[in-house]
Amino acid sequence: MISKAAIRFVKSLQDKKQRQKYNQFIVEGEKSITELLKSQFRIVKLYAVQAWLEANILNIDKIDVDVVDSAELKQMSSHQSPQNALAVVEFKHPESISSEDKFVIGLDEIQDPGNLGTIIRIADWYGIKHIVCSKGSTDLYNPKCINSTMGSFLRVNVHYGDIVEYSKSAKLPLMVAVLYGVNIHQGALPKKGLLVIGNEGHGVKNDIIQQAAHLLTIPRFGEAESLNAAVSTAILLDNLVR
Amino acid sequence: MISKAAIRFVKSLQDKKQRQKYNQFIVEGEKSITELLKSQFRIVKLYAVQAWLEANILNIDKIDVDVVDSAELKQMSSHQSPQNALAVVEFKHPESISSEDKFVIGLDEIQDPGNLGTIIRIADWYGIKHIVCSKGSTDLYNPKCINSTMGSFLRVNVHYGDIVEYSKSAKLPLMVAVLYGVNIHQGALPKKGLLVIGNEGHGVKNDIIQQAAHLLTIPRFGEAESLNAAVSTAILLDNLVR
Repeated sequence: MISKAAIRFVKSLQDKKQRQKYNQFIVEGEKSITELLKSQFRIVKLYAVQAWLEANILNIDKIDVDVVDSAELKQMSSHQSPQNALAVVEFKHPESISSEDKFVIGLDEIQDPGNLGTIIRIADWYGIKHIVCSKGSTDLYNPKCINSTMGSFLRVNVHYGDIVEYSKSAKLPLMVAVLYGVNIHQGALPKKGLLVIGNEGHGVKNDIIQQAAHLLTIPRFGEAESLNAAVSTAILLDNLVR
Repeated sequence: MISKAAIRFVKSLQDKKQRQKYNQFIVEGEKSITELLKSQFRIVKLYAVQAWLEANILNIDKIDVDVVDSAELKQMSSHQSPQNALAVVEFKHPESISSEDKFVIGLDEIQDPGNLGTIIRIADWYGIKHIVCSKGSTDLYNPKCINSTMGSFLRVNVHYGDIVEYSKSAKLPLMVAVLYGVNIHQGALPKKGLLVIGNEGHGVKNDIIQQAAHLLTIPRFGEAESLNAAVSTAILLDNLVR
């Protein structure tokens, strides 16, 4: 039995201001939490049902654990369906981009937390370790984003800042996805670079396009006007890293 | 000024049972409706604000139109933010798969309407005209699905039925995306076929895998365990049609 104040506090972390006040966020789902326990992230508090704890007992010594029941977890959760475990976790400062990082992703004002989470998962699939989000982008620690990474937020560093500055300091040429660039099925593709994907509605801002070393285009065979941000990222990476 | 009964009826079409009772569904968004007006779909009723009607007057003769204000549209809409136009549209029977259709997509119990909509948009980008959904799949006419197609539902035929039967009658060999198949960056890929993508949680059912002529795998360069259904579809199609 945990206090109402504890439940209120966990729920409050669904709000960005609260997360930033405490430098803490929520991780849900058994798979993500199992991976979290093996990661460098610091767990402030783990809430879990008794059966889950017994099955995972080896990984949870030295962690502050409260046993809860499904009803309590449901009250704390951002999900409709109750989970067996939920962790309150401390923000972790992203690691720096190194000279070994051949490809980095830049997201220019991405708005949808589910899209950001899906892109983090795609980056993790293709072995990309860093994503740079422009200042106006959605928050990594939004529960919808964390949930849709399926645990990949543990392995991909998300930076917030000026995409062009990051490209210069990492010495990675800017590559921008546009509708009138080099056909990625035909042209020779860059061996390294910072790939910029635009906002869902407006694409990449002109001042970034003007500084691009490479303009890339996914060839279209049918009639859809565009592809969504996560889908474009996946197709471009599949062509760049192959 | 429209009646409360009319608003109630339009709202009721967010429910699958109501849609199936009337064989009607909702299309929202100016872009989708502009394309809808040029399509073969029959519009039962168009609700729009005066300014939008004046700008689109050439396309709307012979259509039953009711002028509404933003507040009324918002009451009818499945969106949070009000749109300038909303149409009630009749179901349209999908066209048949022909011998010119080299690639068809099969979706094995896809559950999320947003995923289905995104896959319809991807199909439209790659010039794929037909998607076969197994019986337990989410409903094409769900407003979330229609919205996320961004108008592509007008050009892609969605069938519901047995994926294996469709593959036989269209003479398209079954291709299934699995984690242990042919690396799509290296192997010779089929020139035609019915590409089956699995359910978000459980992948493709064994009885479909057992009948597959080709097992295909997207190579992984990092550590994510999987990719989501729409992202996998996009990467596979990009490799198949190139």
